[in-house]
Amino acid sequence: MPDGEDALTTLVGLVREDLEVCNRTIVANMDSPVALIPQLAAHIVAAGGKRLRPLLTLAAARMCGYAGGVRHVNLAACVEFIHTATLLHDDVVDESALRRGLASANAVFGNKASVLVGDFLFARAFELMVADGSLKVLGILSRASATISEGEVLQLVTQNDLSTSEERYLDVIRGKTAALFAAACQIGAVVADRPLSEEMALAEYGMNIGIAFQLVDDALDYAADQAQLGKTVGDDFREGKITLPVLVAYTQGTAEERSFWQRTIEECQQTEADLSHAMDLMAHHNAIRITLDRAAHLAAEAQAKLSLFPDSPFKTSLMAVADYTVSRVR
Amino acid sequence: MPDGEDALTTLVGLVREDLEVCNRTIVANMDSPVALIPQLAAHIVAAGGKRLRPLLTLAAARMCGYAGGVRHVNLAACVEFIHTATLLHDDVVDESALRRGLASANAVFGNKASVLVGDFLFARAFELMVADGSLKVLGILSRASATISEGEVLQLVTQNDLSTSEERYLDVIRGKTAALFAAACQIGAVVADRPLSEEMALAEYGMNIGIAFQLVDDALDYAADQAQLGKTVGDDFREGKITLPVLVAYTQGTAEERSFWQRTIEECQQTEADLSHAMDLMAHHNAIRITLDRAAHLAAEAQAKLSLFPDSPFKTSLMAVADYTVSRVR
Repeated sequence: MPDGEDALTTLVGLVREDLEVCNRTIVANMDSPVALIPQLAAHIVAAGGKRLRPLLTLAAARMCGYAGGVRHVNLAACVEFIHTATLLHDDVVDESALRRGLASANAVFGNKASVLVGDFLFARAFELMVADGSLKVLGILSRASATISEGEVLQLVTQNDLSTSEERYLDVIRGKTAALFAAACQIGAVVADRPLSEEMALAEYGMNIGIAFQLVDDALDYAADQAQLGKTVGDDFREGKITLPVLVAYTQGTAEERSFWQRTIEECQQTEADLSHAMDLMAHHNAIRITLDRAAHLAAEAQAKLSLFPDSPFKTSLMAVADYTVSRVR
Repeated sequence: MPDGEDALTTLVGLVREDLEVCNRTIVANMDSPVALIPQLAAHIVAAGGKRLRPLLTLAAARMCGYAGGVRHVNLAACVEFIHTATLLHDDVVDESALRRGLASANAVFGNKASVLVGDFLFARAFELMVADGSLKVLGILSRASATISEGEVLQLVTQNDLSTSEERYLDVIRGKTAALFAAACQIGAVVADRPLSEEMALAEYGMNIGIAFQLVDDALDYAADQAQLGKTVGDDFREGKITLPVLVAYTQGTAEERSFWQRTIEECQQTEADLSHAMDLMAHHNAIRITLDRAAHLAAEAQAKLSLFPDSPFKTSLMAVADYTVSRVR
């Protein structure tokens, strides 16, 4: 187990009961008279994953002193449903062969079912929010949902385009990944009825660890041990996805190296040996190190945002989660 | 222009100003810094279509005496966004070659962009509802959205399955089509703050014309003049979709006819001449007539639901819209 997993284990221990209720809420709410819906949803929701986003909602709510109800649990389930819907739609889109080490839902059930069950989970998340009754929460999560799709479309537009700036790449990951982390944390303060300053601090904490998380994910795509992480190394490379490791290696590369990146990323003309050569070029230009340093810096910024909260085991745990986001790779 | 179009023309005339504001609201709200989003959305939203669903919201609100605001206009835009999102996701799924006579969005922009822009419009619809501020409306439209995806998944499950019962087929079209018609009408009563009895009457009116509308659509797939309707005749047949015309012809067919349907619909083994033979079998068994009669009956039931509203030009127009849903084919 990498060091970082300790942080997540501690957090899970702290909110164990909440998380169990949350898991039951998730399973109960993905039910439908149309049997394929819970079947397909179970494939991706119930099969697990780390529940990182709902854990953030639970821990943030508890750190803010929320007690005496299950609003945080219900909203944590909404966050997980929105996340799952985006995974299902992303799988359709990217034809990912692996997701959490299992065959992706669309490989098993088909694209059509994955799109529609994603839509169902998204709608169901909004039904749960309506039952919760907070227009403020509805506003935060509907805005986050729109931002996620904007980030995903921007990623599509920048794909295979090496002229993409770092700023634009950061816009992509702020949208596709960090917006939901930010919203998940923010609503913890909302259910606890905390002042706007605490809401914003938690949103910024979430935004920073979300960006860090995605930077590390993008680094892992060129560095991970496939068996250990259940993720296919080189997915991003094969799709010509523009990520920070690629941008660093490309902008710092020689003319010859640049034509390598143009052929492989822009034209998607790839041979067997190209991924390994790409990894060598990244090592030469410290591209993975630079990406991970950037993530570590953001994790530290995230931790600083929590300074206005009094010490508590929940705060300690959220501090550790920031470290976890960057310690997934060594 | 078929007779039925008159009803729609009259309705459009009655709510012309509302509809113009609604169209501007639609265009303004599909904007995004990510340029592909308004581009793709414009292809399907701004290109037109009849705006039947938002027209229902506008007319229902006006019939209920709503005045002095633009809530009905904003919510009509939400309804159109949800409808457009389902069209975009349905196109991805069905690989439809034609949609309103134009190349479908996914043929032009790709499946991936269509899924993501659909997600954006769906999220944006919820943002608009949050700005409107009615939890009741949010509840109605989030429930309708979940029901739509359940109907679409059920359609997927029943595809190519001739043992599908009529009741199950009706479940499909209640979900995929009629639920949004019902919600679109119901929220007209909600913004006008009318009693539950009127809300329910409008929901039932919408449900009935929605089912009628889809029955006619399913009939048109075996009867329409392709050039006139901008719809490819035989799409449903080629996909092996289970619709009432098929179920009537199949259940009333001889053993030989049944094996024809099994080969073409269940096994999707089709030759050039099969569509024409299918249409002959339907004519022989009055399958189109039976389908349209069922639709006409539902349109009459829809009209009866409006009896508790006092006479007004809006009521007259909604009565005529019920006729329109079944007069699209001659």
